[in-house]
Amino acid sequence: MVAEFTMHHRITYYECDETGHPTLATAIAMLILASDNENTATGVGQAASAAYGGGWVIVNYAGKLGEQQAKVDEEVVLRTRVRAYNRFFVVRDFWIESLSGTVYMQVTGMFVFMSLTKRKLIAIPQSMIDGFSLAPTKRLPRLEKPAEVTEWQGAFSREYRVRYFDIDSNRHVNNAHYFDWMEDPLGADFLKAHRVRKFRLAFDHEVRYGQTVTSTCMVDETTTGIVTHHLIRVGEHECARATIDWQEN
Amino acid sequence: MVAEFTMHHRITYYECDETGHPTLATAIAMLILASDNENTATGVGQAASAAYGGGWVIVNYAGKLGEQQAKVDEEVVLRTRVRAYNRFFVVRDFWIESLSGTVYMQVTGMFVFMSLTKRKLIAIPQSMIDGFSLAPTKRLPRLEKPAEVTEWQGAFSREYRVRYFDIDSNRHVNNAHYFDWMEDPLGADFLKAHRVRKFRLAFDHEVRYGQTVTSTCMVDETTTGIVTHHLIRVGEHECARATIDWQEN
Repeated sequence: MVAEFTMHHRITYYECDETGHPTLATAIAMLILASDNENTATGVGQAASAAYGGGWVIVNYAGKLGEQQAKVDEEVVLRTRVRAYNRFFVVRDFWIESLSGTVYMQVTGMFVFMSLTKRKLIAIPQSMIDGFSLAPTKRLPRLEKPAEVTEWQGAFSREYRVRYFDIDSNRHVNNAHYFDWMEDPLGADFLKAHRVRKFRLAFDHEVRYGQTVTSTCMVDETTTGIVTHHLIRVGEHECARATIDWQEN
Repeated sequence: MVAEFTMHHRITYYECDETGHPTLATAIAMLILASDNENTATGVGQAASAAYGGGWVIVNYAGKLGEQQAKVDEEVVLRTRVRAYNRFFVVRDFWIESLSGTVYMQVTGMFVFMSLTKRKLIAIPQSMIDGFSLAPTKRLPRLEKPAEVTEWQGAFSREYRVRYFDIDSNRHVNNAHYFDWMEDPLGADFLKAHRVRKFRLAFDHEVRYGQTVTSTCMVDETTTGIVTHHLIRVGEHECARATIDWQEN
């Protein structure tokens, strides 16, 4: 029996943008809240990780959003469970749902366990694996990756300095902020007129306090809809890459 | 009998900074959440305001923080009530407390009712005053104002572009962001080593999406402790001013 973790959360006005719906960044932050809480409940959370000198680090996300979205003041259900894992990777599913079960968002994330002192990937400690109450998987499910873009024609960029308050109580730049940096250059007119239907984001290098990231976007109007491509860099160093599918409001 | 509004809120990891405590900006956002909810409950909220073509706008805040502060994952009590009002101004008290009644933060705020079409102050509609269940006050309590600083010697500045996601579901730049803009230039070393004990912030002009604000700070080490002075400007236009008293951690 796969352990599943469920919690309720009332969406505050400051978690929503002008459209009255949670921002993508906040939605991701909420889902991580659910997995943090599950990890703590099953004994593989921050305290346990710290005992191994390690921490969970996100590798990539792939998500889908429903036609309907949660609204300000709404109480939503955050659900998460480990879908699969091997010695090095954990694949975790997340859902944001209404109280009556409408799925607002489904996200899959792949995580690794990193040594915080050596800053490198280490095998997941057995005692933490025990917390999953699940057999290991030979072939991990693959998450859809961002599109490989080689020609950034018509792309535009904006710079964002990493601020002190971008670092949260996990002592790292909250990975949800990457979504804000990626979406903001699209501008208010675009962001008010469109909503996210699908996204794939892959992280490569962590950004740090005091650095300035360059967020590059390219808008691609295909026959099936609008797709945007995103790149977050510090200097020439690629830190994250994403593809987002949009629908007109 | 003065109506008082109470709600519970569990503090998320993304509402806290590296110290594991809520940021000043988030604490303010939480308090406004409580007053938004009270306003809605007593029929003077967003929907009612909109019917008069108006909205509540903050003029200034004065707050005190306790020796102990709320922590990540803690369930806190948010309390608010209207302390006094006249035709044009409402003075509102706010508290963040632990479940056992420890006061983490006490804030008083003065609000006006603005015509959103004419962008000017208007008399508070009688039907909204009725919602307060309180007699009007002849002499409104005065909030402590930020210090009058004329010499900004040794001051330093940073620029912040107002981003799309700085606008919340109330369709304005969330006023809590001013605290982030004011504190961030002090830098991580200062912010990790000190905590806020007292603050006074006065708003003058609203900042808008796409503008770039200049946040100027001056650190003043007095015999009784460290005081910082803050100015938020757009060009030469003053938008907000604050004084913050700090204590070493």
